Amino acid sequence: MVAQIDHNSVPMKGLSVPAQEMHTCTFDSLPLQHGGRLVPITMAYETWGTLNDAGDNAILITHALTGSSHAFDPENPNDPKAAWWNPLIGVGRPFDTSRYFVICSNILGGCYGSTGPSSFNPHTGRPYGMDFPVVTIRDMVNAQRKLIDHLGVKRLAMVAGGSIGGQQALEWAVIFPELVQKVAVVAATARLTAQAIAFSEVQRQAIMADSSWQGGNYTPGNGPHAGLAIARMLAMITYQSEESMEMRFARHPATRLSVSPPAGETDPGNRFDVENYLYYQGNALVRRFDANSYLYISRAMDLYDVSEGYPSMEVALRRLRSKALFIGIRSDFLFPAMHVRWLADQVRALGGDGTYIELDSPHGHDAFLKEWKQMTDALHTII
Amino acid sequence: MVAQIDHNSVPMKGLSVPAQEMHTCTFDSLPLQHGGRLVPITMAYETWGTLNDAGDNAILITHALTGSSHAFDPENPNDPKAAWWNPLIGVGRPFDTSRYFVICSNILGGCYGSTGPSSFNPHTGRPYGMDFPVVTIRDMVNAQRKLIDHLGVKRLAMVAGGSIGGQQALEWAVIFPELVQKVAVVAATARLTAQAIAFSEVQRQAIMADSSWQGGNYTPGNGPHAGLAIARMLAMITYQSEESMEMRFARHPATRLSVSPPAGETDPGNRFDVENYLYYQGNALVRRFDANSYLYISRAMDLYDVSEGYPSMEVALRRLRSKALFIGIRSDFLFPAMHVRWLADQVRALGGDGTYIELDSPHGHDAFLKEWKQMTDALHTII
Repeated sequence: MVAQIDHNSVPMKGLSVPAQEMHTCTFDSLPLQHGGRLVPITMAYETWGTLNDAGDNAILITHALTGSSHAFDPENPNDPKAAWWNPLIGVGRPFDTSRYFVICSNILGGCYGSTGPSSFNPHTGRPYGMDFPVVTIRDMVNAQRKLIDHLGVKRLAMVAGGSIGGQQALEWAVIFPELVQKVAVVAATARLTAQAIAFSEVQRQAIMADSSWQGGNYTPGNGPHAGLAIARMLAMITYQSEESMEMRFARHPATRLSVSPPAGETDPGNRFDVENYLYYQGNALVRRFDANSYLYISRAMDLYDVSEGYPSMEVALRRLRSKALFIGIRSDFLFPAMHVRWLADQVRALGGDGTYIELDSPHGHDAFLKEWKQMTDALHTII
Repeated sequence: MVAQIDHNSVPMKGLSVPAQEMHTCTFDSLPLQHGGRLVPITMAYETWGTLNDAGDNAILITHALTGSSHAFDPENPNDPKAAWWNPLIGVGRPFDTSRYFVICSNILGGCYGSTGPSSFNPHTGRPYGMDFPVVTIRDMVNAQRKLIDHLGVKRLAMVAGGSIGGQQALEWAVIFPELVQKVAVVAATARLTAQAIAFSEVQRQAIMADSSWQGGNYTPGNGPHAGLAIARMLAMITYQSEESMEMRFARHPATRLSVSPPAGETDPGNRFDVENYLYYQGNALVRRFDANSYLYISRAMDLYDVSEGYPSMEVALRRLRSKALFIGIRSDFLFPAMHVRWLADQVRALGGDGTYIELDSPHGHDAFLKEWKQMTDALHTII
């Protein structure tokens, strides 16, 4: 194990992580759940607060599909947009940096400093592209395990994350039960539904159908812009709800027609505001995210099944030793609340300490990145 | 007005309408709701049963996005797949051909014989492509009006359709109240939600982002195959429900890997059965449907608002004189049941004769093409 600055990662255009706050650490090798190994792997991370002598006051925050290590921005702690869980981290907040050593790392497969498809493949001297191996939620957790060992953490006071971050939190509690005192699984389930996999696959096909994708061998900055923007447009629908989109957009006409559609072409008839919004969101992701990372991470989300490798779901969930909080969102149709509740019920039925709280929000899946008051109250029940 | 065979339409590969049963009729001109006129227009249609001397026993059946005039197949009346509403039409069925003269025409903008973007533009001698004007649900209804006049129909005993066909049925009852004795609006609402428009727009962007689309100027048979297949994949998700996809696919692995993904590329990790199903459905549509027709008709669906041109929704709905049946589907998330019910409630509140029946089906929007027993029972309450 060698801690060092990784000089091999391809910098992303529009990277939103302030370089001075991000650290990297490189490890010799990581064996992978579906076979093979990555040699070496780099983990990019940020930390806030101080690790105590016992090494047991650390909280690991795990991020969602297009997230980064920048969960908290100590320079702008009161700007909710400065970091993705900014209002939940800091003195007096649930993840209290005066009491806890808070860690957030970019996930394996990502494009914000950790090893992913846009990293250089040491065997070829070029970016991995689609030569990158299949990585799973379990692989992401095993990579984080290397990082916390490196940082001197003996036991995690908590692991918390939403969406794919919630899958990681659950996986942590199942594969390393002795290391995780508490866990908060937000807007995540034991495994995805067929509908959610289907939405993911449409997104990936849109990326791969873009001729600029070139089998994944595009040069950085010249990737499948239209395909990735279309994927994001669809994802943004699944992160919201009929109710929230109706409140925000209804059938209002677009006012600013300067926003370009990903395809460069508009429809016959007048443009709706909701369409403009989706174009904007699609284009914004293209400026900050790598298309191959999108393929690999969304695939890891689909493939995730907490029971994989165990004789049954019960055997897997019976492993939990953590005090576990499951947070569902009533309007989430990607990770439906009833499936999150089921997970809490199962844990409790199997003798574990599982509680369930539902966010009463119209904002769909994205509520875990918007409902700061409800999220704060929910987290305070466990932390 | 001239009734004749249209020699100008571009034949579609894999056209599912038996040529010997389809008739066409060409009219000089159709003024359009959003301006301009189409000169000439051809309507392709089929009829079953006999028009009575009074001309008042006709039922007009209106089809959905990718449908055709082939609602009934008298040669194969017991094969539900031989025609899209086959089990509902025929002797002893709700649309009883021994009592009624049943008409179904391909909609304006379509590619099954009626004038649409793949028809020749008489001004250029080439297919219209994106020079085709914006057409609306109201335009489709006005074109159908020309057809029924031509056929000698004096008054429609009923207009019935689902989805975009339901929008047409509603529009018929509002713009020609004196001509429509009864109406069955199935899985359709007064206007689409922002979420439904958003899903449509992702589909259209996928088509237009395909480099083979070429601004709509592809040659027949060489269109945006990948883009149209991806659009269909997404549409198929919105036509079903989480519940039905879970029953049918869950997380089963794909068995037949010979099905090609639209992008020609598969994902890292094993393929799921639901993905294979979507590839199959996407590829199947490419063989039978025109991409530009898809753009225009889905746009007409989004643009539809029954109140357009009236001072208010109330004024529009107060025009109804028909006995109206509204059929919602409990698991439909594209045209949610509560919005269909709202329409029935409004009609009744405004003094009209509106009833609501909800199909108790897990099959989502597509239930109007699957739940034959429930559809039959519901239609028998009005017919």
